[in-house]
Amino acid sequence: MKISLMHGAGGEVMGEVVDLFSKITNTNAGGIGLEALDDGAVIPIGDRQVVFTTDSHVVRPLFFPGGDIGRISVCGTINDIAMMGGRPLALSCGLIIEEGFDFDTLSKIVDSMDRALSEENVSLVTGDTKVMEKGALDQIAINTAGIGVAETIVRDNGLIPGDAIIVSGTLGDHGFAVLASREEFDFADQIISDVAPLSGMVHAAMNAGTIHAMKDPTRGGFASAINEMAKKSKVMIRISEEEVPIRSSVRAASQLLGIDPLEVANEGKVVMGVPADDAETILKVLKGHRYGKDAAIIGTVQEGTGVIMETAAGGERFIETPMGDPVPRVC
Amino acid sequence: MKISLMHGAGGEVMGEVVDLFSKITNTNAGGIGLEALDDGAVIPIGDRQVVFTTDSHVVRPLFFPGGDIGRISVCGTINDIAMMGGRPLALSCGLIIEEGFDFDTLSKIVDSMDRALSEENVSLVTGDTKVMEKGALDQIAINTAGIGVAETIVRDNGLIPGDAIIVSGTLGDHGFAVLASREEFDFADQIISDVAPLSGMVHAAMNAGTIHAMKDPTRGGFASAINEMAKKSKVMIRISEEEVPIRSSVRAASQLLGIDPLEVANEGKVVMGVPADDAETILKVLKGHRYGKDAAIIGTVQEGTGVIMETAAGGERFIETPMGDPVPRVC
Ligand SMILES: Nc1ncnc2c1ncn2[C@@H]1O[C@H](COP(=O)(O)OP(=O)(O)OP(=O)(O)O)[C@@H](O)[C@H]1O
Ligand SMILES: Nc1ncnc2c1ncn2[C@@H]1O[C@H](COP(=O)(O)OP(=O)(O)OP(=O)(O)O)[C@@H](O)[C@H]1O
Ligand SMILES: [Mg+2]
Ligand SMILES: [Mg+2]
Ligand SMILES: [Mg+2]
Ligand SMILES: [Mg+2]
Ligand SMILES: [Mg+2]
Ligand SMILES: [Mg+2]
Repeated sequence: MKISLMHGAGGEVMGEVVDLFSKITNTNAGGIGLEALDDGAVIPIGDRQVVFTTDSHVVRPLFFPGGDIGRISVCGTINDIAMMGGRPLALSCGLIIEEGFDFDTLSKIVDSMDRALSEENVSLVTGDTKVMEKGALDQIAINTAGIGVAETIVRDNGLIPGDAIIVSGTLGDHGFAVLASREEFDFADQIISDVAPLSGMVHAAMNAGTIHAMKDPTRGGFASAINEMAKKSKVMIRISEEEVPIRSSVRAASQLLGIDPLEVANEGKVVMGVPADDAETILKVLKGHRYGKDAAIIGTVQEGTGVIMETAAGGERFIETPMGDPVPRVC
Repeated sequence: MKISLMHGAGGEVMGEVVDLFSKITNTNAGGIGLEALDDGAVIPIGDRQVVFTTDSHVVRPLFFPGGDIGRISVCGTINDIAMMGGRPLALSCGLIIEEGFDFDTLSKIVDSMDRALSEENVSLVTGDTKVMEKGALDQIAINTAGIGVAETIVRDNGLIPGDAIIVSGTLGDHGFAVLASREEFDFADQIISDVAPLSGMVHAAMNAGTIHAMKDPTRGGFASAINEMAKKSKVMIRISEEEVPIRSSVRAASQLLGIDPLEVANEGKVVMGVPADDAETILKVLKGHRYGKDAAIIGTVQEGTGVIMETAAGGERFIETPMGDPVPRVC
């Protein structure tokens, strides 16, 4: 078998690679390990719960409307720490660069990383730099890993019947921003990536109420994240299409390209399951945050299995786990 | 300015890239940060000292005598944690794969990672997988980051006049093993990489005596590591050429190729500065370990600056910091 683009696209197919790693002898250092396939691992150290996670980024183009590979590298890892309930403390940066890459461009990428780190007061404490000969790598790849501390651990498998499902804003922005800038489509409104660090907003929400489960809808988009949450929690989820926030520009692009906005990556959004009684309070906190203005309650959790979309037309359809994100190298 | 291969070769030139990161607003999370440019960072969490470090690996060929990219990815990070005095707990794995890469080869790489992890009882707890389209990446690149806990932190800058310098074995093996397998040179003896996880051995040494400073002589080899230790410690080091352990096969290859064995990467060695009184005890512990059989006391620390080699012929020369490792993509 050969590795295909789908093996790196965050959906079903990627599981074949992850399965190889799941067979490693030691995959858990005492807390939450690889077998949970959550946004990050948790390791008890002394009396603290340390969250540990990593993401690599190979997005093209390197600079896109609303962000760049530097910002996304920092936000990806900060957000996976936040999704576990952790407060991010420090990141590492593993840089792999193609020989001949422009030094000033690298400098701009590092500046952008700095701005994203500073937003959340996270330190970049260690790193590594490798260079591959010209032609052996397309420009640059950036890995970050990160550690944080969780007072309350939040899993992606904690949904309970009766919970409300909240998304923190419009879906599909990042994937379509990248696609649009790559293909130079001429949409009426420019689509801007949502890439943003969410730790501050997530902890404000955690202070306002209980969060039963949380996940960032990155590769594979909302469709992938919500199915994983439903399956792991052993519940059914009903989503109301009319409540799902999608920008009109994204909707237009999605119709033009035949790509479902629920299946493409977001890089500044969170999907939460919260007790019905806390939903309005948490929603208000999210809406009060710069990265949560378009937050909405979009569904409910019930007993059963699967994710069902109640369509605007009054019908029903399943939201399925995509094989992978339809946009290659989206992050 | 353009990025050159030397920017990723672990010597003087790489400093230009690292300088960009040193300008980031927050580079220290309370312990030892990026500005120390040590093997890893230290972050106080609760009452523990957490060591955090990362390395990416792009070595060619993927499989070489004595090791492979999987083993080196695990050992690189375990060793940088050990160099800080930390006991490694958990690693992350950021995989970037070229479309079309053979799945069975990936499986072999993961098995090799597992064996190296198991040697030191370290867990692989989290990861990420990206795929780049065919031609955008030469085969595979593997990043690992790791966390550990240090009871006693060991820096690379703690040398004191009077200390003895110890190396844990023969120098230059990894660099020449990679070179030889790549070029298919026909040396009389096959040169085997020394790639190995050193945490167990290092902690045995730490239990046997005091270690003032420690570093793994990876890219740029012993020459780079010993100069960094001398400069940061503000001391002079005298090395006795006759005491430096170098395999005859490595010496022969080095003469043939005109490459200094002190300037190429080792992946299973440690350079230590220890009080003279502890030197023999620590040496004995190292020699008793499977990865330290050829350990030797090779020099002494004095007041002054620079690293001086007392040659076998009775002369003296400086060991200089190399601009970078002479072997491209050695790790
Ligand atoms: N190469 C790998 N080694 C070990 N674990 C992996 C690897 N790739 C993925 N995983 C694990 O599989 C799960 C899913 O990974 P994935 O990268 O999709 O999560 P994510 O980071 O939350 O999403 P995204 O990367 O789209 O932001 C995670 O638990 C992750 O730790
Ligand atoms: N891209 C980067 N971002 C931040 N810090 C970096 C980066 N590259 C290197 N550094 C820092 O520079 C110092 C030297 O890095 P280097 O990778 O040479 O150390 P090492 O891992 O001990 O050696 P090797 O990589 O050869 O095993 C380290 O402190 C490292 O954290
Ligand atoms: Mg995630
Ligand atoms: Mg992620
Ligand atoms: Mg390194
Ligand atoms: Mg090191
Ligand atoms: Mg290293
Ligand atoms: Mg990931």
